[in-house]
Amino acid sequence: MSIVLVSPRNPLNIGAAARAMSNFGFGDLRLVNAYDVAFQEAKSAVNAGWVLQETRNFASLPEALSDCSYVVGATGVTARDPQVPLHRLEQAAPDLHEASRYGRVALVFGSEKHGLSREDISYCHRLLHIPTRPAHDSMNLGQAVAICLYELVRAEPEALQEGDRPVAASTETLDLLHDRLFTVLKHSGYVNRTVAGSVEIKLRQLLRRLAPNAEDATLLLGMVRQISLVLENDALREKCRQEWQDAPPD
Amino acid sequence: MSIVLVSPRNPLNIGAAARAMSNFGFGDLRLVNAYDVAFQEAKSAVNAGWVLQETRNFASLPEALSDCSYVVGATGVTARDPQVPLHRLEQAAPDLHEASRYGRVALVFGSEKHGLSREDISYCHRLLHIPTRPAHDSMNLGQAVAICLYELVRAEPEALQEGDRPVAASTETLDLLHDRLFTVLKHSGYVNRTVAGSVEIKLRQLLRRLAPNAEDATLLLGMVRQISLVLENDALREKCRQEWQDAPPD
Repeated sequence: MSIVLVSPRNPLNIGAAARAMSNFGFGDLRLVNAYDVAFQEAKSAVNAGWVLQETRNFASLPEALSDCSYVVGATGVTARDPQVPLHRLEQAAPDLHEASRYGRVALVFGSEKHGLSREDISYCHRLLHIPTRPAHDSMNLGQAVAICLYELVRAEPEALQEGDRPVAASTETLDLLHDRLFTVLKHSGYVNRTVAGSVEIKLRQLLRRLAPNAEDATLLLGMVRQISLVLENDALREKCRQEWQDAPPD
Repeated sequence: MSIVLVSPRNPLNIGAAARAMSNFGFGDLRLVNAYDVAFQEAKSAVNAGWVLQETRNFASLPEALSDCSYVVGATGVTARDPQVPLHRLEQAAPDLHEASRYGRVALVFGSEKHGLSREDISYCHRLLHIPTRPAHDSMNLGQAVAICLYELVRAEPEALQEGDRPVAASTETLDLLHDRLFTVLKHSGYVNRTVAGSVEIKLRQLLRRLAPNAEDATLLLGMVRQISLVLENDALREKCRQEWQDAPPD
């Protein structure tokens, strides 16, 4: 499992997240667009430990998530997006364990000040919230990370069974599918420039809800690629049309 | 319930404990032998909030506990005293709730550096430990407080809310989607007559695995319909192509 901090600003919080990860046995910390000063300060802190030595900083959230197939965002109840299912932490934990059997799982935290943006949330399959008081639901970042990891350890299934389960499609594959399908939708007039931004996010969330496995994603990529080709190539299109018109009815 | 911090040295930790208490709805923070400087700094921090305004500093642990009838100390596994029962946090939480029906309960945390002393532990009815890795069981004080309070809130589950579960797409809708998509795939050359039968079945199964809800199925139907239209209509197709070619790059 990977822990992803988007735009962390305070080196103490980066350090606190890393410490909690070490406490609970999680090793893969990823930062997105971290202030370089904050990152370097956290790394050079006394007792920064093994987690921070391996921590990587990415330029964007999709880059940080490229090898992840299940993405859960931590958010306050008020920041929710109605398109993305929101669960209490203890209800979300079993799903995270289950999903980690099929691919890499990422747990994403927003910046101290603003939390996750709508764009960030569009990369998430699920959202979780820690059951704080509604009147004060803004948690310290390091404490929020610690509580989530505690719950994950607490909810850990006794023994995981090996299954021949299909591998889930990675964020990289979903984004490739998204980009190609979006191009087809543009070239078919489903999207115009006015609505392009909102359709792009809608489409990203749709693909997360459908959650194709890796094999199905490949199948879909092939379909979209062929539709795209035929939209660009008049001769090919005419040929396909002819083939089915000439053929006897099914 | 009272949260007691024995000899806290870092104002940030006092502040973090108070913030977590506010997050989870606990109001009574007591310090024992806190460095006065640390206490004043924490109190004057921005957003110190209502918990810190009411926080009291005591000269000794028994004074801080004088009105408490059940005392639980938080400790690492290694620091335990064989005379005092030690439970994992989630096993200790129900006892704390039960005891709070009969009198004031205190949850006591030791100093950042040394944890609870043998003397401190002698005031405890029970000890609890957070299930960290034995190789790194020293937690940050603010995070330890946050996790304990989370578990206490968690152990009192609120009534589960009824969710607005999305309605699954009907077989009728799935089949409509299947038929339209299959036509597009034929007209784009993805399917030829040799493989048509097997692709048709593959596509049907794919749609079941994706299991779109009714709303998403409508979204997909709209996309497929538009792609189908543009495949059949040369003028429309040229128009869409022009629109995106003429437009400035994204």
